[in-house]
Amino acid sequence: MSRAPSRGFSPCAESLMCYFETMLMPDFEKGQGLVPAVVQEHRSGKVLMLAYVNRLAWERTLETGEAHYWSRSRNELWHKGATSGNVQKVMEIFVDCDQDTVLFKVEQVGGAACHTGYESCFYRKVGRDGTASVVGVKVFDPEKVYGR
Amino acid sequence: MSRAPSRGFSPCAESLMCYFETMLMPDFEKGQGLVPAVVQEHRSGKVLMLAYVNRLAWERTLETGEAHYWSRSRNELWHKGATSGNVQKVMEIFVDCDQDTVLFKVEQVGGAACHTGYESCFYRKVGRDGTASVVGVKVFDPEKVYGR
Repeated sequence: MSRAPSRGFSPCAESLMCYFETMLMPDFEKGQGLVPAVVQEHRSGKVLMLAYVNRLAWERTLETGEAHYWSRSRNELWHKGATSGNVQKVMEIFVDCDQDTVLFKVEQVGGAACHTGYESCFYRKVGRDGTASVVGVKVFDPEKVYGR
Repeated sequence: MSRAPSRGFSPCAESLMCYFETMLMPDFEKGQGLVPAVVQEHRSGKVLMLAYVNRLAWERTLETGEAHYWSRSRNELWHKGATSGNVQKVMEIFVDCDQDTVLFKVEQVGGAACHTGYESCFYRKVGRDGTASVVGVKVFDPEKVYGR
């Protein structure tokens, strides 16, 4: 049985078009191929970092369940933690209203997302006077982990 | 009393240089004048939205304690909620390791950060198969608030 599409009509409830209609992809064109990904620890709610995702990184993340980004400095796909084993297991993914930002809720293996050794890259708090203080939790010593 | 600067030496503990040394400003040059601001509800930890901040928006946010952004589409300063009264009271500000992203922890007056009426702009969850489902909480009807 078919019905002519009308305003407000959604075929999702009764046809296979549903599958295609609900596919949701970030709008990579908007940001010259990249969208920012906010990365949040899925249990504590702590915001760990912000990185960038292109279409390849998005697809690899969906395929593998581990966070992949596009490194803007190295200009290459970045499977975070691939070498150290401190990967980010992606528990949930969200896309924002205008599809130009994504949110990954992750389990951070090893406990630290930041290359400085802090749990979160946002380890410095800025006061209303513009001055900063370190408030983060240091999980590892980067000199020991990455060498000098 | 003075001491020659040496590796690892910080004058912060004993001089007025401290004040200047601990001023922390985002690196606006890196992103052609803009850095992304992750916006998080300070009590629930929910990520509400991502917007962009330039130097003017940064300074206004520090001065007023209410979130100011730079609207990329309108190319103007955006005092979020200025018209509706649904401002974001900035409770805490963080700057990330490489100073190209900031995190605002806010109290969202009115309960909804998204122009669609949802509490968070990240109201759509994407499954491993790439399909989306709406999981957010709608706080207001945008047609009633903004008109048609």
